Amino acid sequence: MTSTSDAELTRDAFLGGRLHLWQPRRGFRAGVDAILLAAAVPARAGECVLELGCGAGAAVLALLARVPGAVATGVEVQPDYAALARRNALEARLPLDVVEADLARLPPAVRGRSFDHVMMNPPYFAAETGTGSADPGRDTALRGDTPLPVWIDAGLRRLRPGGRLTAIQRIERLPEMLSALDARIGSVAVAPLQPRAGRPPQLFLLSGKKGGRAPFRMTPPTVLHEGARHETDAEDYAPAVAAALRDGAALALWD
Amino acid sequence: MTSTSDAELTRDAFLGGRLHLWQPRRGFRAGVDAILLAAAVPARAGECVLELGCGAGAAVLALLARVPGAVATGVEVQPDYAALARRNALEARLPLDVVEADLARLPPAVRGRSFDHVMMNPPYFAAETGTGSADPGRDTALRGDTPLPVWIDAGLRRLRPGGRLTAIQRIERLPEMLSALDARIGSVAVAPLQPRAGRPPQLFLLSGKKGGRAPFRMTPPTVLHEGARHETDAEDYAPAVAAALRDGAALALWD
Repeated sequence: MTSTSDAELTRDAFLGGRLHLWQPRRGFRAGVDAILLAAAVPARAGECVLELGCGAGAAVLALLARVPGAVATGVEVQPDYAALARRNALEARLPLDVVEADLARLPPAVRGRSFDHVMMNPPYFAAETGTGSADPGRDTALRGDTPLPVWIDAGLRRLRPGGRLTAIQRIERLPEMLSALDARIGSVAVAPLQPRAGRPPQLFLLSGKKGGRAPFRMTPPTVLHEGARHETDAEDYAPAVAAALRDGAALALWD
Repeated sequence: MTSTSDAELTRDAFLGGRLHLWQPRRGFRAGVDAILLAAAVPARAGECVLELGCGAGAAVLALLARVPGAVATGVEVQPDYAALARRNALEARLPLDVVEADLARLPPAVRGRSFDHVMMNPPYFAAETGTGSADPGRDTALRGDTPLPVWIDAGLRRLRPGGRLTAIQRIERLPEMLSALDARIGSVAVAPLQPRAGRPPQLFLLSGKKGGRAPFRMTPPTVLHEGARHETDAEDYAPAVAAALRDGAALALWD
């Protein structure tokens, strides 16, 4: 994506049509992951949420659509995506403040605040690995050059004591993610996401509490699709996942 | 355990009676975990195996009982347990050499060798946490004062290039375990062990290859017991687990 000309955008429905988002036709397009992340953040009315790397706003806007009375700040380093997130928030009439900034160098207006929740979907591939995308915006979203520990550190700094960090990431980066957690965060739980029953998880959700003291735990896997394989063209999401994706329901993973 | 007087020992059957082991009546008694660890080591005839912290030898002897033609060395810091492991190996006529040593200070005869496999079941609790056991031998086995990174480092040093590390540990220590892995090991896989379907895993098995390059992965969970809860006094192990525990079968986790 090199401009925000409407011809280069699509307007896509999320949460069963409760949320519509402009996204680049070419470039990074939010998917199921963003909505699952939103569904996993245990935010309540009156709380404030920070999303690091919000892109066009899919995850944080899906969260705000689910939790009336919550407010959010989204940080996005790519100007075109930040502009889309602003437009998407306005058109959806959702209280998202978008800050165009590098999460490693947050401006004083964000650095001076602390949040009840920090959410993030860091790039799935390290900068030095994999084949680059022809689209530079998509490339930054998929293979960012900010190391995972910097994401975690930025998030932990901005959490209030007792606040919660929620992240989604590829299972391949679980060791890197867990190694990046430090003494500031505890009560960490990991929820593996399996595409189908009996198949290895490809993604995981992570939740942790600033100052938490409970031991690390893993939840039973969440199975995204029912059945042993893709049988028909009909969607076959498991009921709890379908409720999150289509009805904007919360995923009760951390209780 | 403070002596090896036979009155203070029990002789217990493992692998459906194919293996009998002397164990302290009071003290650390091997259980299902040791046999699952043995079942998860992908050793073959002609290979040599090192177990760090072998106790009375349950895991490594179960492995040798399953893989004819493999040979093993067991390192155990507690003299009484080392003596029991020696006796158990002799009586079972299995090729286990027991070395009484601190794994952090291995004697030259072990330091000078490299192994096809290293297996370990490090203590489940860190030395500074939890309530101590009244039995000092059991206490060392459960809450060793050797940090996990020292176990991993000792194991990696003793592996040949391409050799495999296999470990079992409580899920609470997964972050610590993954953080202890370094650039010497790759192709790491974690297999969560759930007591029953839908219940959080309490243990995990880990496999990694010295010099391996494949990305980290997680297997689908292995469910130990069938049914939603303990219904009867009859054992209700899942078939693959029952085969490992009663018939000495391998657990095919890493294929």
